[in-house]
Amino acid sequence: MLERVAAVNVGLSSFADALRVQGADAIDVDWRPPSGGDPETVALLERAWGAHGERIDAANAAALTALEGARPHVVAVAPAGEAIPGFAGEMLLHSGPPIAWERVCEPQRRALVAACLLEGWAADRDEAARRLAAGEIALRSGNELGHVGPMCGACSPSMPVWVVEDPAAGVRAYSTINEGPGRTLWFGVGDDEALARARFLRDRAGPLLARLLVRTGPIDVFDLAAQGLHMGDELHMRSQATTNLLWRRLLPAFAAEGGEDVAAALTANHLFFLNIVMAAAKCASLAADAPGSSLVTLIARNGTDMGIQLAGLPGRWFTAPAAPVQDALLREGFAPADAALDIGDSAVLECIGLGGMAVAAAPAVAAFFGGGAADAVARSQLMGEICAARSQRFTVPALGPGGSPVGIDARLVVELGVAPQITTGVLHEARDAGQIGAGIAHQPLAPFRAALAELVDAL
Amino acid sequence: MLERVAAVNVGLSSFADALRVQGADAIDVDWRPPSGGDPETVALLERAWGAHGERIDAANAAALTALEGARPHVVAVAPAGEAIPGFAGEMLLHSGPPIAWERVCEPQRRALVAACLLEGWAADRDEAARRLAAGEIALRSGNELGHVGPMCGACSPSMPVWVVEDPAAGVRAYSTINEGPGRTLWFGVGDDEALARARFLRDRAGPLLARLLVRTGPIDVFDLAAQGLHMGDELHMRSQATTNLLWRRLLPAFAAEGGEDVAAALTANHLFFLNIVMAAAKCASLAADAPGSSLVTLIARNGTDMGIQLAGLPGRWFTAPAAPVQDALLREGFAPADAALDIGDSAVLECIGLGGMAVAAAPAVAAFFGGGAADAVARSQLMGEICAARSQRFTVPALGPGGSPVGIDARLVVELGVAPQITTGVLHEARDAGQIGAGIAHQPLAPFRAALAELVDAL
Repeated sequence: MLERVAAVNVGLSSFADALRVQGADAIDVDWRPPSGGDPETVALLERAWGAHGERIDAANAAALTALEGARPHVVAVAPAGEAIPGFAGEMLLHSGPPIAWERVCEPQRRALVAACLLEGWAADRDEAARRLAAGEIALRSGNELGHVGPMCGACSPSMPVWVVEDPAAGVRAYSTINEGPGRTLWFGVGDDEALARARFLRDRAGPLLARLLVRTGPIDVFDLAAQGLHMGDELHMRSQATTNLLWRRLLPAFAAEGGEDVAAALTANHLFFLNIVMAAAKCASLAADAPGSSLVTLIARNGTDMGIQLAGLPGRWFTAPAAPVQDALLREGFAPADAALDIGDSAVLECIGLGGMAVAAAPAVAAFFGGGAADAVARSQLMGEICAARSQRFTVPALGPGGSPVGIDARLVVELGVAPQITTGVLHEARDAGQIGAGIAHQPLAPFRAALAELVDAL
Repeated sequence: MLERVAAVNVGLSSFADALRVQGADAIDVDWRPPSGGDPETVALLERAWGAHGERIDAANAAALTALEGARPHVVAVAPAGEAIPGFAGEMLLHSGPPIAWERVCEPQRRALVAACLLEGWAADRDEAARRLAAGEIALRSGNELGHVGPMCGACSPSMPVWVVEDPAAGVRAYSTINEGPGRTLWFGVGDDEALARARFLRDRAGPLLARLLVRTGPIDVFDLAAQGLHMGDELHMRSQATTNLLWRRLLPAFAAEGGEDVAAALTANHLFFLNIVMAAAKCASLAADAPGSSLVTLIARNGTDMGIQLAGLPGRWFTAPAAPVQDALLREGFAPADAALDIGDSAVLECIGLGGMAVAAAPAVAAFFGGGAADAVARSQLMGEICAARSQRFTVPALGPGGSPVGIDARLVVELGVAPQITTGVLHEARDAGQIGAGIAHQPLAPFRAALAELVDAL
């Protein structure tokens, strides 16, 4: 049932030959690319696999080595404004690619307005919205400062963030403390209850977590994640076992420092580890910059646009309108028309071999979409078709000896017309109902094609 | 690949018919029972499936309902002498069936001698051994007082025990706090280091755990175990994820009570949950007593003898010499001749659908014996052939919609000649080297046959 597939060849045998020369597996499939009728894309793919193939392959190999070699550690918890270089003054971070206030989607607006109140930059929500619209409060894509946030991804300077560092690569990344279920900023709720939670995290949880980390010393994030993959987590929709590995690690420090209220609040959150592993993934993706590489190191959405970045063109966004979340299961009382578009930075996990790539590790996540263990394996295998390799460190028993697919190759995405599938939550667009469901966001193909074209042109 | 097998029919179609009437699945296999040449066993099986079949089936159904319906909760931690009725005076408990001192195996002797020192019943090890040999210190099988202990299973009155209760059935069971890896009594080491650990558990960990439980209230053991089965544990050789679920639950109480030293010591022990789930399994097995039932509710070994009990003949032991642990992986420097025989009460887990029954949930355990995820499934399926049902509450994604095999039927064991396989540790016989490996203990068939004969005779 299991096959180790590094690439799927469609049509031109030279493509598969090029792969086989690199030692990668290639199989032929009964399939014709959409580019069958598009000479421009065929020409682009011929350049990407042919004339520039060797150069790109070498760059991808370097990027993969860096991705797989990164060992990000949580080293501290600190207020975002102190921890994140360049995060100064009246500025807010958000998930996804850069965006102007007038185009920001409603859930993200509600979160950002609430963040202004948390900081005391406005007396009420109307004033906050006015100041944001006037540009008096700056908006930055968190990704540009090394910050990643799930869903709305709002971050303001006083919010505590996990500081995650890969000492070998000399990179750092950051993420807020996951707020948990219910009425929270990350779910696009900015009411007083959500603000109270944000204040609790800022005033109680953040300082305590900082002290706990001083006691434990740096924590190897991917070491815990790799164990979690053998305990039913895929680390995106489900990080329950990995979160518990963290609690085990922090337990003696909690016993020493106290903080029953913080412990009770945080242990009620099964996704507590999500933001930590996202920051670690961002670290690895930053470490993987490699000129000429066609590997996708970033996929981020802000509910209006989605954007990707390639390891070969670091910092350069390729965007398209954010997709609706498909195959969504919505809570009772909500309709597809209520749903906001795909949002959040969490897809950075899929760029390093976790989440949708590793869903074979998490039958419970597949079950959410009505499938069993075999469906979970099939989903991982489909993602393996657009990935350059199988991970050495993220192994999954159900995938056999090969690890989780890692290294999304824009060439394979364009050639096969298979976009990364992101399992994600669904927020209410118009009002602050929070998370109303979950589903799969099929990412648009155009940015992958545009990125590949620019990469090939630059070579 | 997966088949739901409740029973395997061999030869006489009336056997399968009797099962099908009960709504159980039955398949025919190309196999002849060892009883082919033994008219007595054939006659026994004909009575057990034929004349008494309906009566036994009904009793088994009742026993299964009780086994599956039991909801044991950890309700307290207290000194064994206070918690366990009948545990009074200078008395020690041990694992396995009852045994006289002169026949106690060396590892268990070392543990029991150390327990005497812990209690202050002897000035040194020689005096302790002399008093035990003279019968001045009484020896009881823990199982007869509701206590189960892994490996040597030594329990003395001042040792703290988990008190596990099934309120509906009105039964209680007990187990010591797991001592963890290294030089410890349960591994047959009774030196000063092992004694220091026992004192730490008695004086520091026990009282603290008792206070934590007052804060948390009763904890539903099988609720955690059922989650753990979806997180890579089979709950016998591996209970790591389930242990972490417990830490998550205890974290706020630890933060309130303090106890960094205890937290550090206990979180270093991946098998911490083992004794808790064993006590819960003992509770369920006590709840399952049902006159006429051929289900095996107890399998216990003391390193000299192994013994089983049937739900239909509660309290009645059927014994045989303990088996060597086969297919064992030994630590470097140790040889099969060093190995003690099969020991411990932990096989009570296999009687309720965990451990070897559920090994499909734990590819890591299968990997220990050189197999992959498919081998783990095959091991569970083999055990399914001697079980009366699939568990409703202990589900395993890799086994598909059916749960873990539950309810070992002595009739199927005798008929198929397939004994329960217990994955277990291996102790050093002659000296206090502790755990020197792990392997599979194939239980002898004779006690199952003797028990079935007595059951049928009694009907």
